[in-house]
Amino acid sequence: MTAIDFWYSIGSTYSYLTVMRLPGVAAETGAHFRWRPFNVRHVMIAQNNIPFKDKPVKTAYMWRDIARRAEGYGLAPEIPAPYPLAGLELANQVAVLGGREGWGEAYTRETYRRWFEAAEPAGEDPNLSESLVAIGQDPARVIAVARSEEIVATLADATAEAMALGVFGSPSFAVGGEIFWGDDRLEDAIAWAGRGV
Amino acid sequence: MTAIDFWYSIGSTYSYLTVMRLPGVAAETGAHFRWRPFNVRHVMIAQNNIPFKDKPVKTAYMWRDIARRAEGYGLAPEIPAPYPLAGLELANQVAVLGGREGWGEAYTRETYRRWFEAAEPAGEDPNLSESLVAIGQDPARVIAVARSEEIVATLADATAEAMALGVFGSPSFAVGGEIFWGDDRLEDAIAWAGRGV
Repeated sequence: MTAIDFWYSIGSTYSYLTVMRLPGVAAETGAHFRWRPFNVRHVMIAQNNIPFKDKPVKTAYMWRDIARRAEGYGLAPEIPAPYPLAGLELANQVAVLGGREGWGEAYTRETYRRWFEAAEPAGEDPNLSESLVAIGQDPARVIAVARSEEIVATLADATAEAMALGVFGSPSFAVGGEIFWGDDRLEDAIAWAGRGV
Repeated sequence: MTAIDFWYSIGSTYSYLTVMRLPGVAAETGAHFRWRPFNVRHVMIAQNNIPFKDKPVKTAYMWRDIARRAEGYGLAPEIPAPYPLAGLELANQVAVLGGREGWGEAYTRETYRRWFEAAEPAGEDPNLSESLVAIGQDPARVIAVARSEEIVATLADATAEAMALGVFGSPSFAVGGEIFWGDDRLEDAIAWAGRGV
């Protein structure tokens, strides 16, 4: 099956659903996912795509929708989670470093769990350091490297790559040249990957 | 099973999918739908919710997503369809009148079919008159009544009712106090209705 790029930003609310269920989905379907952090806030500002700010009705719906779908996946988040995240960039810089060093997926899941299930915003303490400790990483080292020019540039490059593919929101799934946006398009992306494109 | 209010605006692109597949879904599942036209443009302007205007990347994705999902439903639209619709209000005023007289669903499906499969914008001729003729209605009479103060007020009342429920986009499904937004939430709405709330 064609590999699927899972483009996500820590900071996206709906991505919680995908981050938490993706390992189970991968095991069940045999789909292979590459976890690709990017800065969705940069993309949305660039494209004047502001789905929730100053939109209380749509925002209230978003939380209700996430709560209902989480229940369907056997998840039990505290809704609403703290939002938006002040530490979005740092959270994703850490994810980029983790991707390079092999612990990006574990960190992403742990930081989302604390964000949605313990009301601790991702990208700042206590969530950030405790998530890193929980997966066996040294917070002082990781946070210093994550703030380096190199990692900042790597996240910016990934964001540019996502935009060039047509990604405009998180989560998105890229299969060859096809983009599928939203946790609710995960099954469509897997079906597309199964076509062997 | 609890009845489901299907809130829609002719003018919404994703509603094409729902309008075309709803009769089959109703027959398969036993779900009962009440077709409720409203003016989604009024709601979106009131809530500053502008999903596609001046957003070319998201708009391109929307058309591709509709094309893929239409294929999955066995539909064959010409994508992109003319958009946005200049005649949105009149199209929905006609639907309101049709709901009162018993031909609202047939008109909605026929006008969407011409809009998406023959590139004729809904809410203006030739689509409007030919859709009415196709379902056995007299265009001159219908259009005159649809423009009456009474029907204009009825559409405005329906729109206010939708907003009071928390509807902010089309299509939406209301089951008791729960709102499900998007063609891709139709199955969730039917499952919710099956709980007997």
